[in-house]
Amino acid sequence: MIYFDTDYMEGAHPLVLRRLVETNSLHTVGYGRDAFTARAKKLILDRCGIDNGEVYFLVGGTQTNAVVLDRLLDHNDGVLATDTAHINVHEAGAIESNGNKILTLPGHDGKLAAKDIREYVETFYSDATNEFMVRPGAVYISFPTELGTLYSLDELRELRAVCDEFRLPLYIDGARLAYGLKGEGNDVTLRDIAALSDAFYIGGTKCGTLFGEAIVTRRPDLFPRFASLIKLHGATLAKGRLLGVQFEALFDEALLAETTIDNDSASDTSASDENVSKSEKCCEVLYDRIGEHAIRLAMKLREAFHVRGYKMLIESPTNQQFVILPNDKLDSLHKVASFELWGPRGATETAVRFVTDWSTTEEDVDLLIANL
Amino acid sequence: MIYFDTDYMEGAHPLVLRRLVETNSLHTVGYGRDAFTARAKKLILDRCGIDNGEVYFLVGGTQTNAVVLDRLLDHNDGVLATDTAHINVHEAGAIESNGNKILTLPGHDGKLAAKDIREYVETFYSDATNEFMVRPGAVYISFPTELGTLYSLDELRELRAVCDEFRLPLYIDGARLAYGLKGEGNDVTLRDIAALSDAFYIGGTKCGTLFGEAIVTRRPDLFPRFASLIKLHGATLAKGRLLGVQFEALFDEALLAETTIDNDSASDTSASDENVSKSEKCCEVLYDRIGEHAIRLAMKLREAFHVRGYKMLIESPTNQQFVILPNDKLDSLHKVASFELWGPRGATETAVRFVTDWSTTEEDVDLLIANL
Amino acid sequence: MIYFDTDYMEGAHPLVLRRLVETNSLHTVGYGRDAFTARAKKLILDRCGIDNGEVYFLVGGTQTNAVVLDRLLDHNDGVLATDTAHINVHEAGAIESNGNKILTLPGHDGKLAAKDIREYVETFYSDATNEFMVRPGAVYISFPTELGTLYSLDELRELRAVCDEFRLPLYIDGARLAYGLKGEGNDVTLRDIAALSDAFYIGGTKCGTLFGEAIVTRRPDLFPRFASLIKLHGATLAKGRLLGVQFEALFDEALLAETTIDNDSASDTSASDENVSKSEKCCEVLYDRIGEHAIRLAMKLREAFHVRGYKMLIESPTNQQFVILPNDKLDSLHKVASFELWGPRGATETAVRFVTDWSTTEEDVDLLIANL
Amino acid sequence: MIYFDTDYMEGAHPLVLRRLVETNSLHTVGYGRDAFTARAKKLILDRCGIDNGEVYFLVGGTQTNAVVLDRLLDHNDGVLATDTAHINVHEAGAIESNGNKILTLPGHDGKLAAKDIREYVETFYSDATNEFMVRPGAVYISFPTELGTLYSLDELRELRAVCDEFRLPLYIDGARLAYGLKGEGNDVTLRDIAALSDAFYIGGTKCGTLFGEAIVTRRPDLFPRFASLIKLHGATLAKGRLLGVQFEALFDEALLAETTIDNDSASDTSASDENVSKSEKCCEVLYDRIGEHAIRLAMKLREAFHVRGYKMLIESPTNQQFVILPNDKLDSLHKVASFELWGPRGATETAVRFVTDWSTTEEDVDLLIANL
Repeated sequence: MIYFDTDYMEGAHPLVLRRLVETNSLHTVGYGRDAFTARAKKLILDRCGIDNGEVYFLVGGTQTNAVVLDRLLDHNDGVLATDTAHINVHEAGAIESNGNKILTLPGHDGKLAAKDIREYVETFYSDATNEFMVRPGAVYISFPTELGTLYSLDELRELRAVCDEFRLPLYIDGARLAYGLKGEGNDVTLRDIAALSDAFYIGGTKCGTLFGEAIVTRRPDLFPRFASLIKLHGATLAKGRLLGVQFEALFDEALLAETTIDNDSASDTSASDENVSKSEKCCEVLYDRIGEHAIRLAMKLREAFHVRGYKMLIESPTNQQFVILPNDKLDSLHKVASFELWGPRGATETAVRFVTDWSTTEEDVDLLIANL
Repeated sequence: MIYFDTDYMEGAHPLVLRRLVETNSLHTVGYGRDAFTARAKKLILDRCGIDNGEVYFLVGGTQTNAVVLDRLLDHNDGVLATDTAHINVHEAGAIESNGNKILTLPGHDGKLAAKDIREYVETFYSDATNEFMVRPGAVYISFPTELGTLYSLDELRELRAVCDEFRLPLYIDGARLAYGLKGEGNDVTLRDIAALSDAFYIGGTKCGTLFGEAIVTRRPDLFPRFASLIKLHGATLAKGRLLGVQFEALFDEALLAETTIDNDSASDTSASDENVSKSEKCCEVLYDRIGEHAIRLAMKLREAFHVRGYKMLIESPTNQQFVILPNDKLDSLHKVASFELWGPRGATETAVRFVTDWSTTEEDVDLLIANL
Repeated sequence: MIYFDTDYMEGAHPLVLRRLVETNSLHTVGYGRDAFTARAKKLILDRCGIDNGEVYFLVGGTQTNAVVLDRLLDHNDGVLATDTAHINVHEAGAIESNGNKILTLPGHDGKLAAKDIREYVETFYSDATNEFMVRPGAVYISFPTELGTLYSLDELRELRAVCDEFRLPLYIDGARLAYGLKGEGNDVTLRDIAALSDAFYIGGTKCGTLFGEAIVTRRPDLFPRFASLIKLHGATLAKGRLLGVQFEALFDEALLAETTIDNDSASDTSASDENVSKSEKCCEVLYDRIGEHAIRLAMKLREAFHVRGYKMLIESPTNQQFVILPNDKLDSLHKVASFELWGPRGATETAVRFVTDWSTTEEDVDLLIANL
Repeated sequence: MIYFDTDYMEGAHPLVLRRLVETNSLHTVGYGRDAFTARAKKLILDRCGIDNGEVYFLVGGTQTNAVVLDRLLDHNDGVLATDTAHINVHEAGAIESNGNKILTLPGHDGKLAAKDIREYVETFYSDATNEFMVRPGAVYISFPTELGTLYSLDELRELRAVCDEFRLPLYIDGARLAYGLKGEGNDVTLRDIAALSDAFYIGGTKCGTLFGEAIVTRRPDLFPRFASLIKLHGATLAKGRLLGVQFEALFDEALLAETTIDNDSASDTSASDENVSKSEKCCEVLYDRIGEHAIRLAMKLREAFHVRGYKMLIESPTNQQFVILPNDKLDSLHKVASFELWGPRGATETAVRFVTDWSTTEEDVDLLIANL
């Protein structure tokens, strides 16, 4: 069986796991006050081009969204998001559990439009009775979105502009950030994400670690006493270094460089990406390579869908591919591959999703294509 | 340097880590619906002697306490606990963040007394204005307590009786349960804990895993829709099998048996516990061995304190030892060993804490004793 | 100036105020444990045809909705409501502040459709990942709706049926219930409301009292320890009898009967409703009369709009009339009458609202009509 | 029967009620945007000597405490209060329901000591792990306290100093403020309360109104978007002018002056306080007179207890008198007077409470004394 269900079915990328094993018997202080965590934070801030920022490591995505928005929102604020946003649909009401309302706007291929934000906020402020309404207090988007789509740099800049105009913090959910940054046609860099958001998180769980998300902010002033709020949410990891060690592995150029030379076989991923030139690789980190690998295979798969004439539910440039399969094809494919229906099964055809990640192999994709 | 600061300074017990490595490249469904998790639950329930119970795996202790008490308490209920309880002092207000009050009672060597509960509850129900007061809705204790002390079986039975009388769920925080069960003079078994509580948790983080706590209940009826509540709290681990794999390692007799024979060197712990007879070991699991190991070393240390005439802050039969050191001794010891002050430094002497765990070696303890 | 802004611009109906004055110097126990409150509860339950129910008096509507839904919903439940529902738009996030999500469905002239509920709930329960979604835990509707429209008896029965099917409590916001029950063409009685809902509230603030809403339920089992929850919400009135006295005045047949004979001039309202036959009046209470009075004047006003050919924003059979006025007419009318714009001012015409209540006089309406 | 149970057994002071009746048929805008409310705010601020402050009117005390502290406290803050504080004991967990912990300190005759605050806060800030503890974020006291005692001006200044030192807002619960300000030996004025607190409330419910509490602050910067938070708590009164009208009556010198001359009989209270000199009365308002009246009678009663040799539970200079009665005396007194036990009935003697207020008459007190 080959697996395309989702991007958290394996453990950690072998290089990440190796670092956990290597450091297992060291004694360090708890709660992320260790040297691994400090170094991981520095590597990330440097890579984001942030001078006076802060990084916080948490375990999972729902937790991360809840804790960040709890801090950014006042008790009587709401957060603007698309109606399909993960926080609105698949986090069991975690934001509302904080006491905050999600103010939904329509998505455009899953994306939030700056003009919709402006209209909502202007309407709010022009309403004389708005003290009885929930004030928009922050903006939440995902990169990539729930539908695998990407904001262009211009779109992000427009969002930034409207957020500046109305003093709204912009928070970006980067659960699949590695796959977004390497998405086909993407013109947004990690530095852009860091500069245009007030806070965002670099997803680890779906991009190479056992678990872990790195909240990054160039605005530490927006996060007073954040360590305490994290604890209040039960989100403080006792052995905090586990997060530091893993993110250090993802963002340490030296580690990847040395690994490629000395121990190439430790990394399934690197072997199959020979077409990347040396000069580009000079500053590469594992997080990049993971993104590249999954996107290359996802695009190969998409091309095969196109060639065979399948209808796409949406054109996604990232590691999630949404295609509409005739039901007989769906059933026959399910004999060799595991993947998810995207919504209920239709009468004659059904939308399904194929997801690649760092653990997907060329052979997996070729076998899937052979069965299309 | 030798480390006695706390019991979460290392990674995972080597046998636990080995299982994570062995299973790393397998694909499984997420959120704990995998076979490892299912097997770990079964092993735990069997060992607890529970037929129709349930096990839920979470990542950390504060999170576990918050989620369990959120379920057990109604919106306008409070939880009875000692004033020194971890939930009252060191969890950043997580319980209050749920909207629930902690109703504190005095501790007796850190323990909650059944008679104090009875008096509190009877006073509450006899007060004609109690609709304006917070109703006691559950009881929280720790085994061992924050001070390293243990409830006797009789004490637990008294707590059970008063809880039955007033229909109060009894919840036991077992962050250091392994070290409590093997505590010197302890007459309480895992089965007793399971039978006398409504819910409790088996601590993994301090007892051998990278992270993870196993909530065990013989009363699943008290936990309706609990998976959803866990998600709402941001406490659902995407790669849930990581918890299953680790707890399976802690509670699998077969794993330990085979390991002892085939690969003794993989476990630092086993080597030093030769005085345990074979027959006792027939049903031993790693969780037992971890407890035994830490307690044997803690008792060796305690004996040394006694022999040298140091005052103990409290007589603890578990892996935390609280001793009062003259300040010059404290300073000289700090040159060879890392350990925590227990409260502020005194003028001439200071209370300190030494903690042993599965990673503490005989050599560490001998070196510490040599410097006393 | 004549006032049609809203239905809470005056104090209390004179008969209600008179009772407050008459009882002012009596000493009673606090918190609604007095005899006035007991009698008011009985009058209401009798009139609702409820044998074993309960009534709770609170001060205001937002508070009432928040406290009731806090009790009906589990921590990880949401409440189904239309997107225009008062709780969704104009209560400043009070429901989310409780930790609960509002699950919005499209309104049909402001009304929630049973089929939309069924579809939502069925979709929820058929989703294998619904433990990560917010469960629909109750249904909220208003009678009349925000747009002044009314559910027919058949529509309410369909809602009841779908609520029964999925075990969802049905809660009806009756802020303007008096005006709904007497609405033109209405076929729903107070007893229907009581029988078809699990709980509802009889609005006092907009229907004759200084303040006060009466929560009525035929399902006290759904409201355990409710007095305590009310206190927790800060919604317990110390001098609770003030609520009892006012609702007693609204629902006491004897008071109205005697008043009509002895002291007709005390009631502005009664004087103008001479066309109600004696036999119908035999069981009339002030709450009925207040409703009739406001509706009669609202219908007179609506007829005038129709006759003059104004476009109605919506056809409302109740005390709120929504009409679209050319801007020059709007401006000239504003010189003699006070009323609210319904949304932003348009380029050439604007939607406005005219509201009648117990305090509106025939002269007010005639003057308004003369200026149309 | 004569009543000494508590100070909210009657309706409103006749002068307050008269104003409600006089203004009943006026039309005003809702939610406290009316002219009565504006004038009442101005009268209060002037009397408090506050130039750039703000007043907010709410309905009841528990609500007021919850809303104010919700604003003053960050999500992960707690409020310092005595263990006997009303918010800690008799508000059903309203503060915890906001998500905030009450950090209790021992009371000294019901009063919080500045030195205890300093010690607590210094300990907190010196603890290296305090990010896992609840930060003290505000201080709550009552004037008078739950036990009827009063802070001296020096004590309040010490509290102010420690609050300034640690940047803690000081909030004073003035549910019975009228009776505190006129308390025997009191050296604290309304202006002192206003200047030394960051916010406080002037209790109306127990001091002359039907209901209502006036939050006063010289620090509006601490209360951003407070109207919206009030609404979120369900604490916004639709007919907000009812609060304005009542507090205007309590604080309008003109009203009282004219009333004393023209219509003395309208006020039970004024008649019995002839010993107050004219010059003092020049600036008197009803709130003063209500306080004076109740205190004069309470002191007369206390003197009688002293003379007859009864033990006092505590020496209270305010309108609540706590005395220990032999049980046979308690039983005989209960035949003529209604009053509350203060705690459970003892074997031979029992603590009881007698409360006077604006409605207590000289005859009531004389009759009680005659039966002592």
